[in-house]
Amino acid sequence: MTFSEADHRFMSRALELARRGRFTTRPNPQVGCVVVRNDEVVGEGWHQRAGEPHAEVHALRQAGALATGATAYVTLEPCAHHGRTPPCCQALIDVGIRRVVVACEDPFPRVNGQGLQRLRDAGVQVDVGLLREQAVELNRGFLANSSRGRPWVRLKFGMSLDGRTALADGRSKWITGEQAREDVHRWRLASGAILTGSGTLLADDPHLTARVPEVAVPLAPLRVVLDRRLRVPAGARVFDQQAPTLLVHARDARRDVSPPAHVERLVLEDAEEGAQLGALLAELGRRGLHDVFVEAGPTLGGALLRAGLVDELLLYVAPRLLGDEARPLLAGLAPASLDAAPAFQLVDTLQLGADLRLRLHPRTPG
Amino acid sequence: MTFSEADHRFMSRALELARRGRFTTRPNPQVGCVVVRNDEVVGEGWHQRAGEPHAEVHALRQAGALATGATAYVTLEPCAHHGRTPPCCQALIDVGIRRVVVACEDPFPRVNGQGLQRLRDAGVQVDVGLLREQAVELNRGFLANSSRGRPWVRLKFGMSLDGRTALADGRSKWITGEQAREDVHRWRLASGAILTGSGTLLADDPHLTARVPEVAVPLAPLRVVLDRRLRVPAGARVFDQQAPTLLVHARDARRDVSPPAHVERLVLEDAEEGAQLGALLAELGRRGLHDVFVEAGPTLGGALLRAGLVDELLLYVAPRLLGDEARPLLAGLAPASLDAAPAFQLVDTLQLGADLRLRLHPRTPG
Repeated sequence: MTFSEADHRFMSRALELARRGRFTTRPNPQVGCVVVRNDEVVGEGWHQRAGEPHAEVHALRQAGALATGATAYVTLEPCAHHGRTPPCCQALIDVGIRRVVVACEDPFPRVNGQGLQRLRDAGVQVDVGLLREQAVELNRGFLANSSRGRPWVRLKFGMSLDGRTALADGRSKWITGEQAREDVHRWRLASGAILTGSGTLLADDPHLTARVPEVAVPLAPLRVVLDRRLRVPAGARVFDQQAPTLLVHARDARRDVSPPAHVERLVLEDAEEGAQLGALLAELGRRGLHDVFVEAGPTLGGALLRAGLVDELLLYVAPRLLGDEARPLLAGLAPASLDAAPAFQLVDTLQLGADLRLRLHPRTPG
Repeated sequence: MTFSEADHRFMSRALELARRGRFTTRPNPQVGCVVVRNDEVVGEGWHQRAGEPHAEVHALRQAGALATGATAYVTLEPCAHHGRTPPCCQALIDVGIRRVVVACEDPFPRVNGQGLQRLRDAGVQVDVGLLREQAVELNRGFLANSSRGRPWVRLKFGMSLDGRTALADGRSKWITGEQAREDVHRWRLASGAILTGSGTLLADDPHLTARVPEVAVPLAPLRVVLDRRLRVPAGARVFDQQAPTLLVHARDARRDVSPPAHVERLVLEDAEEGAQLGALLAELGRRGLHDVFVEAGPTLGGALLRAGLVDELLLYVAPRLLGDEARPLLAGLAPASLDAAPAFQLVDTLQLGADLRLRLHPRTPG
């Protein structure tokens, strides 16, 4: 299938619309839709909130009678099932859409090709794959969790040019600047869960809430505290009531501490560390938390990397040099050879004030 | 002075021409010149080799009689002195150039404003400062050495994402890829000197020569070996005859070793480390080595940074994680506070194959 220049333009617009849902659609995916008739946009829509109409419905409503015979550009395969709303593929068929261009298939088990099939069965021309990479990027977590049953794990660090997170004495407040911190809040708010470890909580006592100026009533991400031995005191900020918190600990953790009653607890089964972390992530995935944003120290970061559970690195690099006595980025990671060292490929770079953000994905073999 | 769109276009062309001399003009600066008459280029030139005609002369020759009444765009203030060639400002006056647009003044003591003054005295309109930053970038070393008597020091490292240069056992061969290595060879060849320390030579035994495919007969940079105690064996590759080498050692170094006779020696006066390094750099500057490319380990790198002698950081970042047992980027640098940590500003980023190059300059106060 080759797509025309106009196809590209309309799908780009649909992607742009989809992105408007970045902070609000969870646990649903971000989806945009554009209805085009005679090379003219007659309807636009995007999914805004779970339980509310899908992108296609908004766009078809706007198009009204003009939708008959028109082309619909949708960033994700239209749904084929009755969820909280009726199936979108049926709505497209009912109004007489002639062609549907889809950026990316929906691996969600109750869709998974059936949306495309039902459209084709009804005689609609269906073309798939236009700007697929951008559409995948929009819904990394949703797609990963739907297809493999484990959320997308984004590991974030703030560090110096020489890979240090803090001075030897632990001082690290504001190693990166204001714009980098704002960007972190956006990633947090776009995530179902923020995962951290006891070391970070004991050292910095962060709130781990997500504040984004233009979002008045945010969907608070779940704060997931991995604290095997229950070392974090009950008064820690992460246990406040600004957002829900899940406290994860070992079966044999001390019994004399009790975090506040509103904090849910999850017991880790005995297993080696990688298996424990994998099980925790699978549990978060079952809860519909597709994107897990990890803000942790060298120990949890190193453990996730060692277990091969990191899908994305997000490095905020402050243009300073802290020297070799300062705190290292990772602990417990000691590759036996250069080839055995975790390898990545750069996805993009972004300057944020004086800082530089690097985003990387694990290098896929071959 | 406001410059027109045409002015910008012609000066951009002059800068483009100047860059052709990157590997050949040393110790002279890179300079380009465009002669324009009625908005049309009638002559172009660039400085190719020390002792050969300057950019202006090439461009004026090409313009011939059309130069009379024309405008000349020159990336650096035309010279006012008889060096190995007669003064260019006189050549411009003699052919009747009406206006000279200059990107950047020449602080070289025998020029230093006199070129501009002589042009103005002869009734030529002189406009200075168009695309100055790009012109300065072309001749960082020449300008720095001319104005402050110390070369431009560019400190290069190849490192992992977490700021490590090698595994714990020292293995580091090819941490970065082919394109990064080619880029390093270009910086080497554009430099008057390559400075290294005994640790690097003992660990890796590099040649430290500069090979750039399109330059058949390169001007070999001076290899400067800082080896206070004369630990590097006479058979080290850096002492071969592929390029000149300067061996720098302490007055009281052991006397039982003798590097090959073709290796020049320089004795460091007793002083604290920063003063010693400053004196060494001043000596290189006196020899017309305007750009010093430092390829060293954590010790010399740390010492130069501590002494405030680094003008540019060039970091080649391989997208791997080596962990906290791997070799650190810097040693002997332990800032007492985050504010005391050497701070930089990002100049540019460049993807080189899988690697990322970051170029940074020290942050200037305010």
